[in-house]
Amino acid sequence: MADLQRRDPDRLLPADPETRAIARDLYQRVAGRPIISPHGHVDAALLHFDEPFADPAELFVSRDHYVTRLLHAAGEELGSLGVGDAAPGDARAIWRSLAEHWHLFAGTATGYWLEEELSEVLGVEGEFGPKTADRVYDEVRDRLADPGFRPRALFERFGIEFLATTDDPLDDLAHHRAIRASGLPGRVVPTFRPDAYLDPARPDFGSRVERLLATTASPATFAGYLAALEARRAYFAAHGAVSADHGVVEPVTADLEPGEAERLFQAALAGTADPRQRRAFRAHMLLQMARMSVEDGLVMTVHAGVHRNHSRPTLRRFGPDTGHDIPVPTSFTEGLRPLLDRFGLHRDLHLVLFTVDESAFSRELAPLAGFYPAVYVGAPWWFLDAPDSIARFRSAVTETAGFYRTSGFIDDTRAFLSIPARHDTARRADAGFLARLVREGRLSLPRAELISDDLVGAIPRRVFKL
Amino acid sequence: MADLQRRDPDRLLPADPETRAIARDLYQRVAGRPIISPHGHVDAALLHFDEPFADPAELFVSRDHYVTRLLHAAGEELGSLGVGDAAPGDARAIWRSLAEHWHLFAGTATGYWLEEELSEVLGVEGEFGPKTADRVYDEVRDRLADPGFRPRALFERFGIEFLATTDDPLDDLAHHRAIRASGLPGRVVPTFRPDAYLDPARPDFGSRVERLLATTASPATFAGYLAALEARRAYFAAHGAVSADHGVVEPVTADLEPGEAERLFQAALAGTADPRQRRAFRAHMLLQMARMSVEDGLVMTVHAGVHRNHSRPTLRRFGPDTGHDIPVPTSFTEGLRPLLDRFGLHRDLHLVLFTVDESAFSRELAPLAGFYPAVYVGAPWWFLDAPDSIARFRSAVTETAGFYRTSGFIDDTRAFLSIPARHDTARRADAGFLARLVREGRLSLPRAELISDDLVGAIPRRVFKL
Amino acid sequence: MADLQRRDPDRLLPADPETRAIARDLYQRVAGRPIISPHGHVDAALLHFDEPFADPAELFVSRDHYVTRLLHAAGEELGSLGVGDAAPGDARAIWRSLAEHWHLFAGTATGYWLEEELSEVLGVEGEFGPKTADRVYDEVRDRLADPGFRPRALFERFGIEFLATTDDPLDDLAHHRAIRASGLPGRVVPTFRPDAYLDPARPDFGSRVERLLATTASPATFAGYLAALEARRAYFAAHGAVSADHGVVEPVTADLEPGEAERLFQAALAGTADPRQRRAFRAHMLLQMARMSVEDGLVMTVHAGVHRNHSRPTLRRFGPDTGHDIPVPTSFTEGLRPLLDRFGLHRDLHLVLFTVDESAFSRELAPLAGFYPAVYVGAPWWFLDAPDSIARFRSAVTETAGFYRTSGFIDDTRAFLSIPARHDTARRADAGFLARLVREGRLSLPRAELISDDLVGAIPRRVFKL
Repeated sequence: MADLQRRDPDRLLPADPETRAIARDLYQRVAGRPIISPHGHVDAALLHFDEPFADPAELFVSRDHYVTRLLHAAGEELGSLGVGDAAPGDARAIWRSLAEHWHLFAGTATGYWLEEELSEVLGVEGEFGPKTADRVYDEVRDRLADPGFRPRALFERFGIEFLATTDDPLDDLAHHRAIRASGLPGRVVPTFRPDAYLDPARPDFGSRVERLLATTASPATFAGYLAALEARRAYFAAHGAVSADHGVVEPVTADLEPGEAERLFQAALAGTADPRQRRAFRAHMLLQMARMSVEDGLVMTVHAGVHRNHSRPTLRRFGPDTGHDIPVPTSFTEGLRPLLDRFGLHRDLHLVLFTVDESAFSRELAPLAGFYPAVYVGAPWWFLDAPDSIARFRSAVTETAGFYRTSGFIDDTRAFLSIPARHDTARRADAGFLARLVREGRLSLPRAELISDDLVGAIPRRVFKL
Repeated sequence: MADLQRRDPDRLLPADPETRAIARDLYQRVAGRPIISPHGHVDAALLHFDEPFADPAELFVSRDHYVTRLLHAAGEELGSLGVGDAAPGDARAIWRSLAEHWHLFAGTATGYWLEEELSEVLGVEGEFGPKTADRVYDEVRDRLADPGFRPRALFERFGIEFLATTDDPLDDLAHHRAIRASGLPGRVVPTFRPDAYLDPARPDFGSRVERLLATTASPATFAGYLAALEARRAYFAAHGAVSADHGVVEPVTADLEPGEAERLFQAALAGTADPRQRRAFRAHMLLQMARMSVEDGLVMTVHAGVHRNHSRPTLRRFGPDTGHDIPVPTSFTEGLRPLLDRFGLHRDLHLVLFTVDESAFSRELAPLAGFYPAVYVGAPWWFLDAPDSIARFRSAVTETAGFYRTSGFIDDTRAFLSIPARHDTARRADAGFLARLVREGRLSLPRAELISDDLVGAIPRRVFKL
Repeated sequence: MADLQRRDPDRLLPADPETRAIARDLYQRVAGRPIISPHGHVDAALLHFDEPFADPAELFVSRDHYVTRLLHAAGEELGSLGVGDAAPGDARAIWRSLAEHWHLFAGTATGYWLEEELSEVLGVEGEFGPKTADRVYDEVRDRLADPGFRPRALFERFGIEFLATTDDPLDDLAHHRAIRASGLPGRVVPTFRPDAYLDPARPDFGSRVERLLATTASPATFAGYLAALEARRAYFAAHGAVSADHGVVEPVTADLEPGEAERLFQAALAGTADPRQRRAFRAHMLLQMARMSVEDGLVMTVHAGVHRNHSRPTLRRFGPDTGHDIPVPTSFTEGLRPLLDRFGLHRDLHLVLFTVDESAFSRELAPLAGFYPAVYVGAPWWFLDAPDSIARFRSAVTETAGFYRTSGFIDDTRAFLSIPARHDTARRADAGFLARLVREGRLSLPRAELISDDLVGAIPRRVFKL
């Protein structure tokens, strides 16, 4: 019972008619602007090989943990949804399961995006639900077989000007080289994501560091380790990377003496570091990452405050990234102080802070970004990348930090087909927020127009150094 | 200066006229639907003995700590309001005090409910305030003397289909048996609330456990203790109970080895457990309660994050539940992990999580309920059971978890006459939220209608296994 | 590109036309009422000497850390903005820098106030931005030279009825005596702010306490210290002070035995107290301040939860209060319990709690103020003193605590010219909130009118004992 056929042209805009009219105009200015996606998880191989998308189930369900999580909550086994290494399962049965549970997605961002993808990207019309599951499945399958719906064709149609993937530091970036060589219009670049090489609590930390050191034949010392990380960052930068991304539970930093860092590194490698030492090492490495960003110019993004792979039985059976990362209370003020004392006043460091704890928006992120030249407030992320959440974010952040200390939208998605819907959602939500400020006499219309334009252009370009 | 005479038929609905029109229709669908009240504190004796309500002061003031707390804040002594064991006090004087302080309640949920009770339940007209205190007192007193305003008559008039009380595990449930035998239309069932038997920090823990063990002649071992708890749960289930309720400050769980559990139990009984051990015991018992819920099917509700009886001098003089329970910052993600690792994937466990820390809604409860089949987001509770708070709750939760992972409304009240007003408030607030999503093109009207219906019917029935 | 010429008369009022009409009427009732400013940081010397304001840059930029912080975030050096002890810098160049970065302030409270000051106070017309920087500078400079724009003339024009400054306990209050003697219409009083004398972690704690003891020739004992503090409070009260203000990171209190207090005091004086002892001493002193407030009647205001002078390099170079105080997560429930157990039921203690952690509003402050006669919810403060934040504050607090347990607006400002804009903002925002409650049938219009009046008159007068 989704309204695929008649998407409301004013969708997501404010209810008050006068405000809506202003919002509509602001939105129209930017609706067709190119997409800048400076942080996401699209697989570069997709754009390299340009193979047709697999069946509708794999594309819209099995590979999207936003979707499988709600189906799982409703009682579906992840295995039967095609998650994990098990046999792929019956695509049509998976699709029917989505259709039967479609009411669960009402009001969710995920449901909204799926409707947008079916309707706006694939041109499916009519209702989606249990009764139409098979018809829609067939339509989607046919569309995916059409060359006009291959990844590169869609990339062009979506108007993507810049797309950053997220990559392992040891990735050879061959896909990126191939994409660049292919003449795809628009820039596709890697992002350096070293979490697994910085956290001694990971069981494979030792072996990862060994492989890292091997890339530069560096000695197994802290200096060698830093040199190897720097070399890999340089390799990424040479392949077009503009940023390094860091996912941490606690945004804690520390500025250790070299001797202490060496001792912790050796203990971490030997597997003898205790939890306190591991924490100190992680904290020091986050500061080292900032130091490297100051030196090599890569933007530093921090996605903090998420307990990854919360369900141990699910992790064991289906692996990571299967829909059970759960946020925790998050505070930046004390934890980032050592980093900010050293690098916070550097204008060339761009440190973009993301949180899924809304209480930090007005309490910490806006005040930090409102003083430190290095700090930017990251766009509402993950569970908060949704219309109401975006409105709460702007309301919480703007009165202290304005618009120009925020990062611009990031889609953070591995669901390629959802990219236009996500950016469109942010553009509509921001237009609605700006329109309200105009309607309330807080912003002149020309200023609001300029901001609306900048939010999808000048702002992300400046923050991500494009 | 309350508007008792002309209650606005559109009260609590959104301001924007077009949204309001949609909301009005959604609300009208459910305004008269039966009331399902799966968690509350009505005294079963009320419906057993069906005696007339006492005077207006006792009914609306002395027994309602939502009301006495604001009067107390304004400087009234609790004793002079009829709270505690002191002589009941002059009912008319207490009533006048309420009328004189009526401006304090403007804008509060409590004030709104009182107006609804006076106007909609008792049919009192005109203004309420210092000048009309005596007239309104007389009208209310006369109404309460009318047989049509006795508890059972009101129960029928309110259209209550299901009502759960909250009871001590050792309660013999005689009132519930008598109610069932009386042929009252609608189900009235007990709820198992074992807090006092699970927390070694309570001064009477030892004597309570002794009495508990005596009910089944169980030995004073951890196994005997568990068996006695299981037996009492079975007794409650046999009397119609559908849930067990748990009030905890910290929602922390632990999965201890049997030997360790036995040692902590013995230390707790002996009164020698230190704070750390008591905490571990409580944490283990919360997990044991989930285990029992998996086995006996009782829904598990957790009301977390409240420091009970905050004012020690008030507790000493007037006893517990006298209006000074104060929330604390609350987080579920880490604390519930042991429980969820063991039971979170069980579809038959229904674990409903309530909080009075709004920051946990989008940060933790929606993500948890959006993955774990066992977890449901409890309705906005206590201080958050109010129109704006309900709107914030839906806004924070829906974009991640939708509507069908929430519990449906619970009134949590001991104020019997406030039950219709509370449910009506939630129905209006939810209609307003749904109407906004329709107006913003995020939900089709037929879908919104279905959800509106389900929120007062199918959803609470399924979550509470009715 | 600010709209200085045509300030929207309905600015900050709600979008919905019917709600706006109600809000407009409510606002008009109070728009011209006298200003009561019971907490702020205006320098008393300003009103004593009544000298013309310095150049536009010093007035609107260099001395206002709300303004310099955003310019600093944009990459301007604080030194080049006239902050700190450096040479004052080129006023016109500083002003041009503000104009060039004016887009950064769009949507911020600071930007809104500046526009109000330029337009409503100084009568500057036309746009403000890079192209008009020099013209506006000249106009402002000329206006400031006009005797009608000196501090005392503006004080009268602003309609300030009561203004509290914030002062060091050892201040001789000569400026306040001079102001009183001068016959300025309106009361200007000091506020006792003893933070630096209560916190052993401050490096100059010992020398400060020595000077404090010297004022009363008290012995260097805990009793002597308390007596000296009491004497200074009495001195302030004799000069018209109505309150004592306390800035703390953690709102923690403790009720120590006299012997323990003496030991901690001696260790603090000797500089040998460890962090745990310093924390205990601070906690005990916060409780002692409440005890003194009970005895001498000074209102006790607590501004909690801010990490002051977060950037060590900036503190070293430019001193404190230079724009980098950053909030931290804040909780009152446990920390205030010792204080509230001793004094929370005293009707004559007025304890006003301020936070910059919004999550505490509904979770803790409203519940505390809704029970304890001594507790009032402080108005939205600092980063939260802005239109949307005020709306969120009222929404979070009112449903539990109503309007009459809140403090009334405080401007907390050292920017004298911004006082009318700040109070006007609060009056508009509160009118909008009240109007919504009327439009939603939750408040009668006469009641809303009364509350609107009381919020700017009866409420602050009662809370601050004026």
